[in-house]
Amino acid sequence: MTQTANPTSSGSHRRGATDPSTGAGLDLQEAARRHLWMHFTRLGAYRDHEIPVIVRGEGPYVYDQHGKRYLDGLAGLFTSQLGHGRRELAEAAATQMETLAYFPIWSYAHPRSIELAERIAELTPGDCNRVFFTTGGSEAVESAWKLARQYFKVTGQPLRTKVISREVAYHGTTMGALSVTGVTDIKSVFEPLVPGAVKVPNTNFYRATQHADDIEAFGRYVADRIEEAILAEGPETVAAVYLEPVQNSGGCFTPPPGYFARVREICDRYGVLLVSDEVICGFGRLGHYFGAQRYEFQPDMITVAKGLTSGYAPLGALIAREHLVEPFLEGTRSFLHGITFAGHPVSCAVGLRNLQIFEDEGICEHVRENEASFRQVLEDLRGLPIVGDVRGAGYFYGIELVKDKTTKETFDDEESERLLRGILSPSLYDAGLICRADDRGDPVVQLSPPLICGPEHFKEIGEILRHVLSEAWKQI
Amino acid sequence: MTQTANPTSSGSHRRGATDPSTGAGLDLQEAARRHLWMHFTRLGAYRDHEIPVIVRGEGPYVYDQHGKRYLDGLAGLFTSQLGHGRRELAEAAATQMETLAYFPIWSYAHPRSIELAERIAELTPGDCNRVFFTTGGSEAVESAWKLARQYFKVTGQPLRTKVISREVAYHGTTMGALSVTGVTDIKSVFEPLVPGAVKVPNTNFYRATQHADDIEAFGRYVADRIEEAILAEGPETVAAVYLEPVQNSGGCFTPPPGYFARVREICDRYGVLLVSDEVICGFGRLGHYFGAQRYEFQPDMITVAKGLTSGYAPLGALIAREHLVEPFLEGTRSFLHGITFAGHPVSCAVGLRNLQIFEDEGICEHVRENEASFRQVLEDLRGLPIVGDVRGAGYFYGIELVKDKTTKETFDDEESERLLRGILSPSLYDAGLICRADDRGDPVVQLSPPLICGPEHFKEIGEILRHVLSEAWKQI
Repeated sequence: MTQTANPTSSGSHRRGATDPSTGAGLDLQEAARRHLWMHFTRLGAYRDHEIPVIVRGEGPYVYDQHGKRYLDGLAGLFTSQLGHGRRELAEAAATQMETLAYFPIWSYAHPRSIELAERIAELTPGDCNRVFFTTGGSEAVESAWKLARQYFKVTGQPLRTKVISREVAYHGTTMGALSVTGVTDIKSVFEPLVPGAVKVPNTNFYRATQHADDIEAFGRYVADRIEEAILAEGPETVAAVYLEPVQNSGGCFTPPPGYFARVREICDRYGVLLVSDEVICGFGRLGHYFGAQRYEFQPDMITVAKGLTSGYAPLGALIAREHLVEPFLEGTRSFLHGITFAGHPVSCAVGLRNLQIFEDEGICEHVRENEASFRQVLEDLRGLPIVGDVRGAGYFYGIELVKDKTTKETFDDEESERLLRGILSPSLYDAGLICRADDRGDPVVQLSPPLICGPEHFKEIGEILRHVLSEAWKQI
Repeated sequence: MTQTANPTSSGSHRRGATDPSTGAGLDLQEAARRHLWMHFTRLGAYRDHEIPVIVRGEGPYVYDQHGKRYLDGLAGLFTSQLGHGRRELAEAAATQMETLAYFPIWSYAHPRSIELAERIAELTPGDCNRVFFTTGGSEAVESAWKLARQYFKVTGQPLRTKVISREVAYHGTTMGALSVTGVTDIKSVFEPLVPGAVKVPNTNFYRATQHADDIEAFGRYVADRIEEAILAEGPETVAAVYLEPVQNSGGCFTPPPGYFARVREICDRYGVLLVSDEVICGFGRLGHYFGAQRYEFQPDMITVAKGLTSGYAPLGALIAREHLVEPFLEGTRSFLHGITFAGHPVSCAVGLRNLQIFEDEGICEHVRENEASFRQVLEDLRGLPIVGDVRGAGYFYGIELVKDKTTKETFDDEESERLLRGILSPSLYDAGLICRADDRGDPVVQLSPPLICGPEHFKEIGEILRHVLSEAWKQI
């Protein structure tokens, strides 16, 4: 995938018009072109187009270098649960930074890491009580795989090294996490990767080829593909299954009713660990602290990042059930893993304050109370000829775009390229909405607004989408 | 490795005596035992011993939950170049956090990421001008490998996927970085890892089995082992060589004279990229912004983290020469890699302020002016019967401990365990010095004090080491 939210801002070709409010005497455009290697970005797209520079944020809005306002419909990158500009978080960070900016949690501890670990444990489902901090999502996914491998080695099942995850699912980009990731296009140039990462079908019901008329039967069918993979690999060689509660990549595939219960049964039957990758779905995105709570299943491990600090500081974690730590509590054994900046004191202080605000302001409740209103705004777009499907949960939705609603015919690669990168990305950005136009699977527009948003913001999102999608249909 | 700086603080068996200054109503000890999974840590060691909780820092000192002061002889974890409690950095962080706490650099930019990329490019040797931000060192090492693989794929050398690094060298713990790492003990339980990571001898002259009487000949010999590995693997399959300017793990192995010049020649001869892993050596640790400057070689890529922000916020980077970005500047191609929290606005603001202080206070010059005084204090310990070798550069030293100075006989595993974890770690901690007693290679005590330290701190370090090492010799 190349990030396509706005590879080119077609409306503005200015160069060097740096806003003095950025505080820099530099020509930011030129400096960015020479020195900043942006992520998942076609640098060539900016040879003749201005790089969008986001300079400040306030609530659900961000502002670019020209002072233009955008509704941050992706919450940064599924991160900014509380929106931008929260002074309480800045204060928590500054206080901690002056007191103790950094100390490792390598055989030491610091107060904020302990307090946050305890707070997380209070919020998790069941006995997911052990918190191994990281700096972000990829490291959390890596840590879960490493723990699964070492856990099985020390408990007498040394062959259990493999992991199963779903097609088109994104689980991160460091080589271990990338192996778990099911997006072929961002993997092939980096192969060979870590052996033993097997893929199974995802829960894309809109494109179901089996049981397309019965979502519960479809759910059983795709869950059973996990069992099939475990048996094909040999159950004694499989360590874990990674699933997002709602799969991000591909455009917000929700689980069919009964899916997770059946997956949990399958994992139990074969002694395989179930990892709920909640880097996106955790911390209110689906109206609960954890997606596993919404879908009522008990993971053995939960991976989190992003929303844990509302993105205000880099932090992630692997959260494990008690039985997984047990072999590491005795004698001289240790989980042979560590990350310097993991559980950074400042990040932990921000995380603590963030979760306090979640509680004080009832963020999860707010999402549950307002998600129907968000859904309705998006469902209303189904009337447009280009909208094939609207799916998601909480404040996390994907709109699949099609060439023909009746046949569900999708766009070919060239059309998708033109639609997403030639038309939609610049048009949405020009219209003041930041969201993701993506084709890691079939073409979708993805939305994940800050959790403080309410009906007035959904209305704004709906109006922009209706206008831009209607115009795109005319142009394609 | 298990972190051994102070697995048990033998002097204190108190539990639940939480200092109110931590601001918590919790029993921190109990909460930590139940919920915090410390990194590279034998959790069992804390069943009957108090977990050391570091609550605040000031300059080169940190303070534990009982108010006891320690000289932070490891600078956090090779991170805290400017020492603790710098208010300027907290202010830079808070200002940025209120303005724009987070926005991705995925097809967008934000001012601080651009400014810091430009500043880094000014400081690097040669045309290492392109900055791909990460959140830390492991991700920087992963990014370099991924870039090397994709670069060679798109420039018509698709077989170049392998990397060469040195025995006992530590390059990180995510699965790609862990494959590059040469510390067998922290790898074997996680295998299979990423294929194609080959190891060659390091520059441990103290334990040289060849040319032990001629350091330049030894340097040629170990450099030539890299050529040998390239030829054995097939030059058309080798993408990169990873080297730290001074190898951390094993205890500060410095490069013999001529070593890097010869490695550079070998890399050029076979078209292999040279990666200088400066996660520890960068940003003043060796008296220069980059270790490559001290040892006068031109890397193709530099990986950094830790000191870039003096540890005040999580940040890392892969810095690449111009020719490596060229294939990505045209058309629709992109480096298919990204990390959510990489180039975090707050981390970049802290990095910028940190580098400004480096310049304002002449931090690199200060290290160059004082490193001889540091070295002298440590060299003076050679008189002790347990001290076999003292090696390092700048503010980065290792002291190798031996059973017999004349024969260089080392301790066996059981003795090393008792010496490092039973005696030295608790004694050093009790004596008020935080440093690392480590046996990833042969047993060493490692020192890496904050770069603001001067002769008075070295004297303190020397006195504690002399006392503790002398006592340890009597007990072993």
